[in-house]
Amino acid sequence: MKVAILMGSASDKDKMKGAAKALSMFGIEYEARVLSAHRVPELLEKELLRMEAEGAECVIAGAGLAAHLPGVVASKTVLPVIGVPLNAALSGLDALFSIVQMPKNIPVAAVAIDSSFNAGILAVEILAVKYPELKKKLVEYRKSLKRELEENNSPLILEG
Amino acid sequence: MKVAILMGSASDKDKMKGAAKALSMFGIEYEARVLSAHRVPELLEKELLRMEAEGAECVIAGAGLAAHLPGVVASKTVLPVIGVPLNAALSGLDALFSIVQMPKNIPVAAVAIDSSFNAGILAVEILAVKYPELKKKLVEYRKSLKRELEENNSPLILEG
Amino acid sequence: MKVAILMGSASDKDKMKGAAKALSMFGIEYEARVLSAHRVPELLEKELLRMEAEGAECVIAGAGLAAHLPGVVASKTVLPVIGVPLNAALSGLDALFSIVQMPKNIPVAAVAIDSSFNAGILAVEILAVKYPELKKKLVEYRKSLKRELEENNSPLILEG
Amino acid sequence: MKVAILMGSASDKDKMKGAAKALSMFGIEYEARVLSAHRVPELLEKELLRMEAEGAECVIAGAGLAAHLPGVVASKTVLPVIGVPLNAALSGLDALFSIVQMPKNIPVAAVAIDSSFNAGILAVEILAVKYPELKKKLVEYRKSLKRELEENNSPLILEG
Amino acid sequence: MKVAILMGSASDKDKMKGAAKALSMFGIEYEARVLSAHRVPELLEKELLRMEAEGAECVIAGAGLAAHLPGVVASKTVLPVIGVPLNAALSGLDALFSIVQMPKNIPVAAVAIDSSFNAGILAVEILAVKYPELKKKLVEYRKSLKRELEENNSPLILEG
Amino acid sequence: MKVAILMGSASDKDKMKGAAKALSMFGIEYEARVLSAHRVPELLEKELLRMEAEGAECVIAGAGLAAHLPGVVASKTVLPVIGVPLNAALSGLDALFSIVQMPKNIPVAAVAIDSSFNAGILAVEILAVKYPELKKKLVEYRKSLKRELEENNSPLILEG
Amino acid sequence: MKVAILMGSASDKDKMKGAAKALSMFGIEYEARVLSAHRVPELLEKELLRMEAEGAECVIAGAGLAAHLPGVVASKTVLPVIGVPLNAALSGLDALFSIVQMPKNIPVAAVAIDSSFNAGILAVEILAVKYPELKKKLVEYRKSLKRELEENNSPLILEG
Amino acid sequence: MKVAILMGSASDKDKMKGAAKALSMFGIEYEARVLSAHRVPELLEKELLRMEAEGAECVIAGAGLAAHLPGVVASKTVLPVIGVPLNAALSGLDALFSIVQMPKNIPVAAVAIDSSFNAGILAVEILAVKYPELKKKLVEYRKSLKRELEENNSPLILEG
Repeated sequence: MKVAILMGSASDKDKMKGAAKALSMFGIEYEARVLSAHRVPELLEKELLRMEAEGAECVIAGAGLAAHLPGVVASKTVLPVIGVPLNAALSGLDALFSIVQMPKNIPVAAVAIDSSFNAGILAVEILAVKYPELKKKLVEYRKSLKRELEENNSPLILEG
Repeated sequence: MKVAILMGSASDKDKMKGAAKALSMFGIEYEARVLSAHRVPELLEKELLRMEAEGAECVIAGAGLAAHLPGVVASKTVLPVIGVPLNAALSGLDALFSIVQMPKNIPVAAVAIDSSFNAGILAVEILAVKYPELKKKLVEYRKSLKRELEENNSPLILEG
Repeated sequence: MKVAILMGSASDKDKMKGAAKALSMFGIEYEARVLSAHRVPELLEKELLRMEAEGAECVIAGAGLAAHLPGVVASKTVLPVIGVPLNAALSGLDALFSIVQMPKNIPVAAVAIDSSFNAGILAVEILAVKYPELKKKLVEYRKSLKRELEENNSPLILEG
Repeated sequence: MKVAILMGSASDKDKMKGAAKALSMFGIEYEARVLSAHRVPELLEKELLRMEAEGAECVIAGAGLAAHLPGVVASKTVLPVIGVPLNAALSGLDALFSIVQMPKNIPVAAVAIDSSFNAGILAVEILAVKYPELKKKLVEYRKSLKRELEENNSPLILEG
Repeated sequence: MKVAILMGSASDKDKMKGAAKALSMFGIEYEARVLSAHRVPELLEKELLRMEAEGAECVIAGAGLAAHLPGVVASKTVLPVIGVPLNAALSGLDALFSIVQMPKNIPVAAVAIDSSFNAGILAVEILAVKYPELKKKLVEYRKSLKRELEENNSPLILEG
Repeated sequence: MKVAILMGSASDKDKMKGAAKALSMFGIEYEARVLSAHRVPELLEKELLRMEAEGAECVIAGAGLAAHLPGVVASKTVLPVIGVPLNAALSGLDALFSIVQMPKNIPVAAVAIDSSFNAGILAVEILAVKYPELKKKLVEYRKSLKRELEENNSPLILEG
Repeated sequence: MKVAILMGSASDKDKMKGAAKALSMFGIEYEARVLSAHRVPELLEKELLRMEAEGAECVIAGAGLAAHLPGVVASKTVLPVIGVPLNAALSGLDALFSIVQMPKNIPVAAVAIDSSFNAGILAVEILAVKYPELKKKLVEYRKSLKRELEENNSPLILEG
Repeated sequence: MKVAILMGSASDKDKMKGAAKALSMFGIEYEARVLSAHRVPELLEKELLRMEAEGAECVIAGAGLAAHLPGVVASKTVLPVIGVPLNAALSGLDALFSIVQMPKNIPVAAVAIDSSFNAGILAVEILAVKYPELKKKLVEYRKSLKRELEENNSPLILEG
């Protein structure tokens, strides 16, 4: 296992699928769990340490509202923690602020609101610092994105 | 001791003085500590439990930015937790959202931005549910506020 | 009766059910009423005083838009007042600001937008300061929340 | 007396001078008072009724934060109530929302943040519906504003 | 005719019906027209002057987006102008700011977003300064609102 | 070809049709293409230069979220660039800020959120500086908008 | 004269100097005037038509608060109108919304808050569509910006 | 060199010093440069590739306003890119949205507004995935933060 995917509530499951999809595209194993920072803080810590011991090298944590999960995870590990703000109210601004505005010394890497796929890609980029084959795959992936757009590069018909 | 006053950073000290002032006006003992939810989570829990064992019946917690402290405290105790959003960026909106938008089951009682004095008054109101003499004092205090305004109730001179 | 549940309009009824549900879970009696701060200020005051005389020890007040109800209630009693911002426009930001940004001396305890259930739990926590059996129930409830998550603590399947 | 100028706190005095200035320009008498909706609700009602009895035909009310004063005044009179949001936090957005987002049946006429002068002009416009000489003065005043700009209508030198 | 109801686009018609309803409740005649400040500025001015000549004593203007209509109307008359911000984007914040934040000397009386009914009530309050029978009707209306709430003043059943 | 219409993603196609419609109304040729600033920066530059060489005199670029496309285009040409913020999150505020808040020296001309039709009209106005016949058509178009409103200028029936 | 620079108030003069500076850098003549959309609408129209008759091919209009000036100007001419939101309250958000959120058919080209220099550059870009020598100068200017950064392209020393 | 520190303007230098400080604390070499995404896009790409060839494994990019730099950098490399929103207007909200709301496939890791020190710590965490000695240092650093707070863990005196 290389990446831990955590979410604050079982109802966040669908919104976090993108992270799993991105990781699977690059052949990266992950473990996904519902672990609330507020309701099971001890279990969160225990599972986090276990996952780190079993090889997790990066954490993706998604949460909505006053989204404390990513920051609380970041306070319990020195692994890079990627936070995904989930829109449950206020267009997700509450979650974005709760995730990105971390105080000095304990950063969280925030991605776009409801954008768990990009959290997965960012995790791949982080792992690729260590694993050269992942970097090659990322370069290939970027090229394929280019090719797809280049091959479909024809003027659009906007009327008629 | 009846009230624990916590803050996330020593630099919040001046902004939290209002809470102490309000409690002292009502003769309520408090203990104030800097206890970061992110940097010393274990110490936070230990001290919180100690303060509760020593008689704390209500917690006031102030924090800025992604203000997790009040919510993290609320997850570790069933005492009422009053959160004071401190303005360190974004006019304090980040702290307000991080404190008030708590998920189901773990509420925090938010007061106005930078308004630790009102947090103190709210703590007195909560304790007054149990202690009738505090309720009497609160009623007296409200009357004194009224009297002050009533005695100064004369038309203002806005020009000249 | 231990808790008064007030709302500014009959149309808020569904959004305020969560408060009743939380209180009932803990065996706390409540009385719920529609009492507009603007349309029936005298009746509001009369009923509030009656409910306090009949044993109300905490008030939950929900309102939307320029949500004055919680603040007006707070100005007429020294009981702790919990305000629930209801989203009727602007994602509920107008109600949140109207409830949480109370001036000096008259605090309202704001909870999350549309989160009347948490208002109920906060009321239980406040009453538990006085009633030890409620505190025991709260600790039990927290444990049950933990157990539920712990028992369902298995890796999620996010794909396939 | 034709206009009542109310404010929630003595500290709002300087920001409310503009209203007095505008009214005086049109020879309209006013009475200005500090009357908190939260701390002296009964006195507020008593003074408001007295001022109405003594001839007040319009009310200007300024307040900051969770600015309930204009709305509470509007609930106690059918005179037109002009609300001035005062910036005490959040750039005055909290006061603006608390004043302008009034529920059905109890409107407040909101003017710009910290713009008590315009509140005064609006009061003059309202009184001018009844008093033809005021309307003439308003038309003259508009003409003088025009003349001033017309007479200074020369190209600006923006450099050099 | 006593009140002119203007709107910037025919598509605003449904949202402006509330103003007509409120005026009709009080027996006040109105004339409603679509008159864009940007597309037919001359016609707007011509019609406005005609309506004023035919007896309009107050103007209600509703608009969305960069809602200039109320302010442009206010610049062409000294009648009181009530602005109704209509939500067409950004939850109506763009319209609210464009209406309420008027510069010195040319006020607009803003009411709540999409709240044309309250604009109608405010117009009645303004006309009632001049017409005593309207004031009586307003006092009666307020009483009827009270009675309605008082007669339905029974505890709500929130569960079961 | 006179105008290049660019968008960051094929999914923006429907929202950008308005630009094409406005240009076609004035007989202006355009070429529309999906060209991501992030995924195919080289192709974007190549196509942009080609379109400019083939006669494009103005660029319309629409994008959502962190909408970099208009600014990146503006950095690669000195043609006027019109940016259309597309609402994909946060009511389009993220796209608006990303488009309009350009740093010194590299301006983008922002129009309203999701308002590609107006982007088209603005492009016509820009081209009309050079082409007198376009200016005539614009004046005619404005007149037709006026006529349409003038001919439908009858009082609205808002009730019944 | 090629460009008209308008502002709503003499107090905006300093903030609008950037527009003049940018135009002067490119040898473009301009005329700058204070012309309020609300206080002197007729004079605004008269001067605008005169300036257009005397050769103005583009308009730059700056305003704060409920910034109607750019939109009102745009309604009276088919010249391209560039709007500069000036920060006088709410960080300039009110002015930005009032300028950029124009309704269908009457676009304004908004630039960044308080960014009159960029408004000048955008005006140059628009004129350059017609005047090839301006386009050459713009290309040269961009090159000089590049050269300046390239020549200063050395690693920064951030410590010591 | 392990980390590239980029900023959009020389005026951002002071705000980006925190990143250098954090990296130096961990003995990580960096190279810092001013490279505008809009004014020198080719130089930005050239230098970025050179720095990557010379060993950069992570990029920190700070920018204000419509902060495109981090996203543009992310589109030209598969290295992890950390974006620092710098407050130059709108409290930094424009920069935050422009950095964090990246579209699918090209993530940027956003940290708090003006928080370049945390960007440096996040870079260390990312490099620590590869370099075990860095992870040890991070664990030590966290311990030292704890110790500092633990050793200063005494009740605060808030009054007198």
